[in-house]
Amino acid sequence: MNPPPAFADVQALCFDVFGTVVDWHGSIAAEAQRLGLPVDGGAFALAWRAGYAPAMQQVRSGALPWTNIDGLHRRILDGLLAQHGIAMDEAARQHLNRIWHRLQPWPDSVPGLLRLKRGYTITTLSNGNLSLLVAMAKFGGLPWDAVFSAELFHHYKPDPEVYLGAAQLLGLAPAQVALVAAHPSDLRAAAACGLRTAYVPRPLERGVGGEMEACTPGEFDTVAESFEVLAAQLGC
Amino acid sequence: MNPPPAFADVQALCFDVFGTVVDWHGSIAAEAQRLGLPVDGGAFALAWRAGYAPAMQQVRSGALPWTNIDGLHRRILDGLLAQHGIAMDEAARQHLNRIWHRLQPWPDSVPGLLRLKRGYTITTLSNGNLSLLVAMAKFGGLPWDAVFSAELFHHYKPDPEVYLGAAQLLGLAPAQVALVAAHPSDLRAAAACGLRTAYVPRPLERGVGGEMEACTPGEFDTVAESFEVLAAQLGC
Repeated sequence: MNPPPAFADVQALCFDVFGTVVDWHGSIAAEAQRLGLPVDGGAFALAWRAGYAPAMQQVRSGALPWTNIDGLHRRILDGLLAQHGIAMDEAARQHLNRIWHRLQPWPDSVPGLLRLKRGYTITTLSNGNLSLLVAMAKFGGLPWDAVFSAELFHHYKPDPEVYLGAAQLLGLAPAQVALVAAHPSDLRAAAACGLRTAYVPRPLERGVGGEMEACTPGEFDTVAESFEVLAAQLGC
Repeated sequence: MNPPPAFADVQALCFDVFGTVVDWHGSIAAEAQRLGLPVDGGAFALAWRAGYAPAMQQVRSGALPWTNIDGLHRRILDGLLAQHGIAMDEAARQHLNRIWHRLQPWPDSVPGLLRLKRGYTITTLSNGNLSLLVAMAKFGGLPWDAVFSAELFHHYKPDPEVYLGAAQLLGLAPAQVALVAAHPSDLRAAAACGLRTAYVPRPLERGVGGEMEACTPGEFDTVAESFEVLAAQLGC
C-alpha cells in the first residue's frame, strides 16, 4: 500500500498520548477499584480528566504560573478527594497521583509503534510532563525514539509553540511531521501549523458509550482504527 | 555487587555521547577514507573535533547567536575543506556533515545500555542537537529512555544549566542523577551541580596513542572501563 499523498515527505510521527496511546479511563477506573475508593471508578476517572483542560487554561491565562501536569493532576485530585470526603495520607496521594505514569497502552499501541519506528522517527507530543512520559514508556514498553512534552516549550497544546517546537527540535519542516491523535481538536491545531494529520479514533477513551469529539469525513490526511492499520497504510 | 554508596539514591543515568558512547574519531577517519579525501583520516577527525570547543565558546560568549551543533560542525567543516583545497558540492557537504549522525557505538555501548536500562532511566546529555542524537540512536540502536540535548536549555556543557535542567526534566534532585562520561572536565562540572559521577575512560577516543584528559584517582564516584562493567557495578 502506498502512503497517503499528504505523507510523501513525512519523516517523523508525533503522538498525542493520553487516550491516543494509553487508556487513561480504564487504568484509573481499575486503580480506584483496587484501592477500594467509595466512588464509581469510571466516573472518578472522568471527573479527574475533566479538571485537566480548565487547569491548563489557568496556566495559559497566567492565573497559575507554569505548573506541570503532575502538579495539575494533584490539584484536581485533592479537590476530588475533598468533594467525596475521602481521607488519604500524603504518601497514598502521591502514589495515586502517579497512576498517570502507569497507564496501560491500548492493545495495538506497542506492536504498532514497533512497526512505525522502522520507517519513521516516533516521538510523544503530549501535555504530560517529561518525567511522566518517560515513566509511562518504561511501564508500558513504549519504544519512543524521543520523548517530547509541552513542558519543553512552556506552552500547552493546542498552542502552536508545541507543534512548531517539535518540528524544530526534529530539524524538520512542519510538513515533514505528522501528528497522530485521537482528538480532532489537537489534529486541527497541528494542521493549522502545517503538520500532517493521522486520526486514530479511540471509541473507548471515555469508557463504553463515552462521548467522542465530532469531526468531518475527509478532514484529516488519514484515518486508521489502530496503530497497526496506520503502519500498514504507511508501508511499515 | 552493591552499587557504590554515592549511587544509593540514583535513579537516572545521563550519558555524555561523543567519545563516551560513540567513537567519533574512528567513524570520521573511516568516512574520510571511504570518500577518498586527500587527507589523513585520523588527523582530519581530530581537526574537525578541535574546532568544536572554540565554536561553542563563541556561542557562550555571545559572539555567535545560538547555533546548534549541526551548524557549528558545518562551519568548521567548510573551513577545513577550504584549508585543504578540497572542492565539494553542497549535497556532498551536507552528507559529510551528517557523519556525526552516523557514528559507531563502542562495542560495549549497546549491551551495557540495555542492562543499565533495566535498573535506571537512561538518557543522553550531550551538546549534540536533538535531531542529531535521535538519528544517531536509530543508526546505532542506542536504547535511550529519553534524549536530552544542550539544545533544550540553550546552554552548552559545562554550563550548569544543562546538568540542572536534565535533573529538573527528570523530576529528580541532582543527587538522584549520575553523569556517565569519558571526560573529567564534564564530570567535574556535573559534580559541582550535585550530580553523581561515573567515569568511563575511553583510551581510544583520539585514536591509538591519543591524549586523554588527566584526573586524580578517587576523584569520581565510580570508574568503569566499559558500560558492561558499570552495569555490573550498579547491579544491573
